[in-house]
Amino acid sequence: MCIFCKIANHQMPARWVLEEEDVVAFHDIHPQAPTHILVIPRKHLTSLAHAEQQDEALLGKLMLAARRVAKEAGLVEGGYRVVINTGAGAGQSVFHLHIHVLGGRSWGWPPG
Amino acid sequence: MCIFCKIANHQMPARWVLEEEDVVAFHDIHPQAPTHILVIPRKHLTSLAHAEQQDEALLGKLMLAARRVAKEAGLVEGGYRVVINTGAGAGQSVFHLHIHVLGGRSWGWPPG
Repeated sequence: MCIFCKIANHQMPARWVLEEEDVVAFHDIHPQAPTHILVIPRKHLTSLAHAEQQDEALLGKLMLAARRVAKEAGLVEGGYRVVINTGAGAGQSVFHLHIHVLGGRSWGWPPG
Repeated sequence: MCIFCKIANHQMPARWVLEEEDVVAFHDIHPQAPTHILVIPRKHLTSLAHAEQQDEALLGKLMLAARRVAKEAGLVEGGYRVVINTGAGAGQSVFHLHIHVLGGRSWGWPPG
């Protein structure tokens, strides 16, 4: 079982932010900003590239969950960045789809 | 009407990538990578923070469209980064929700 499946199943510890039927969120253990939360589906999708048409509603739930955790973390006024790395070449290091929600500092462009 | 609404309505030119009923995609005019595509809803949502529960399906469609344009642009093997800037403080410069799909080069971390 992958590390994020273990977290979602409470078989690994994490600093939890959100727990819903289909989506969970927790703090990144290597934060890149004052707030850095990961939002993931409970369903094991390897990456965004592995999502299928049948996952459309789940992806919508993920995005709304990202929006909600950002709001609850107080990131709306200062702004926040949402990032999904797809594939090792883009910096994906855990192969379970996860949305990075980052805020609390200023941001440069390009995004890495 | 905002610039992205004008593009979606063909009242402004763009290098089009995808045109669907609810979602369109076109190349960013200030590319930050060899491939840099913007995926947007036709519906004017100011930012991700402005999405509502009723937009869940639309957000899912956006994510699947991002996945599809990345695949069609040949970005899967090398990896790609998906970025949503929410608010001026995060670098959002056009206030119509847009998903950046970037690929074709290597990526650093943090993402900006």
